[in-house]
Amino acid sequence: MISDKKIKAVFIGAGNLATNLAVALFNSNCHILQIYSRSENSAKQLATRVKSAYTTQISEIINSADLYFICVPDKIIPEIVSELHISNGIVAHTSGSTDIQILSNIKSTGYGIFYPFQSFSKNRIIAFNNIPICLNANNDKTFTALNSVASMISSKVIRMDSETLIWLHLTGIFVNNFTNHLLAISHQISSEKKFNFELLRPLIDETVKKAFNGNPASSQTGPAIRFDQNTINLHAEKLKEYKPELAEIYKALTLSIQSLAEKI
Amino acid sequence: MISDKKIKAVFIGAGNLATNLAVALFNSNCHILQIYSRSENSAKQLATRVKSAYTTQISEIINSADLYFICVPDKIIPEIVSELHISNGIVAHTSGSTDIQILSNIKSTGYGIFYPFQSFSKNRIIAFNNIPICLNANNDKTFTALNSVASMISSKVIRMDSETLIWLHLTGIFVNNFTNHLLAISHQISSEKKFNFELLRPLIDETVKKAFNGNPASSQTGPAIRFDQNTINLHAEKLKEYKPELAEIYKALTLSIQSLAEKI
Repeated sequence: MISDKKIKAVFIGAGNLATNLAVALFNSNCHILQIYSRSENSAKQLATRVKSAYTTQISEIINSADLYFICVPDKIIPEIVSELHISNGIVAHTSGSTDIQILSNIKSTGYGIFYPFQSFSKNRIIAFNNIPICLNANNDKTFTALNSVASMISSKVIRMDSETLIWLHLTGIFVNNFTNHLLAISHQISSEKKFNFELLRPLIDETVKKAFNGNPASSQTGPAIRFDQNTINLHAEKLKEYKPELAEIYKALTLSIQSLAEKI
Repeated sequence: MISDKKIKAVFIGAGNLATNLAVALFNSNCHILQIYSRSENSAKQLATRVKSAYTTQISEIINSADLYFICVPDKIIPEIVSELHISNGIVAHTSGSTDIQILSNIKSTGYGIFYPFQSFSKNRIIAFNNIPICLNANNDKTFTALNSVASMISSKVIRMDSETLIWLHLTGIFVNNFTNHLLAISHQISSEKKFNFELLRPLIDETVKKAFNGNPASSQTGPAIRFDQNTINLHAEKLKEYKPELAEIYKALTLSIQSLAEKI
């Protein structure tokens, strides 16, 4: 499959990840043959961007690609897999929490997982070079093929078994979804209490820098780690009046910081 | 107080914040007269760094400074205030969650709050230029004096009432203490499940960038916002086996993401 010829890829899905990955491969001189999406609008939009054909029918998916990327929400993968009729090339899903075995019934040449470890948005195309791409494959030959494609766009390609992948994905939820939510809560507070959200930026930047400079558990600061019960009570009271569910989060995270501190 | 003469400052406390602030003022040509700390070791260490005297006795604190910074844990502030006998200069505490009135009984020229909004470590001296400094003062004259000093080291000086300050401090806990804890949890998982913590860096960097590029609530991704119950259950199960308290945090934050999503 991997030769001097252009890699031919098909995308099943046209969402945030599909858009970023298809654009990255297109810019690395891959040939994007076709985009499939249930939404004609999404399919067309991405197809235009990467100069490919598109379809809204799974039965019309072209059988001549080298590589098929399944980029749909996790719960749709089984449905896609059962309807996909191809006899050629490699099929890879891009989910961090779906076992590789889900692809084993497809009559493709090989199958695997191609999981770029990043949070994507359609309207924010980002460079792939530093994004880790985690791979898993049904055999070494398939791994070698996926590895060649991943290496075209990223300098950080890692082979990873399904169990480790799940744990990596879980940490991704902690550092992306949950951190983003803490920022969303802070954004809401800043807008309601009338101060500029930008004031928070140097603090979060330093938090991240410091965490990767050593072990984040040992550089924890603040009232929780100091077991400063007066301040903790003041905050709990303020939050309870403002939004009780935030008081719950404050309490859960405070206790967890203290519990980790006692173990260090 | 503010003239061509060097500002003379005394630090009460020699911890993370005192160290960073004293060094920043020293580098901006202030004269650090004295460091007080209960711990001789800490007092001496900081005093050496900023070429000042030091003491471990509150009664020996010099009475001739322009500015006294109280940089001790919140719960020690009342004790310090009751023992502090000075009749000159401005006294400022550096706490984001302590009311300005706590200083009103000190017979100083003026009193206020001088709150650099950042997380500090003694062993990591950081540049103050971009760090927001929030000020509160008992009157305009005191504010003007504090503002001159703050402006010597930072380009982001903001006057803020006590109530707003508490909310800013609370968001600081969310974006620093809690985010750092999410990173600490992830660091622990990465070390126990044998993958490189550095893999997380591009993801958290992008999370922060994206959040300040718009409204973080509207750029949320992941299983919670998709209400992807299969993935959420898989993760809850994995975490319950691994560390039940993490399953609780996962659940609380997932529900909170979903609750915020329903309100947008």
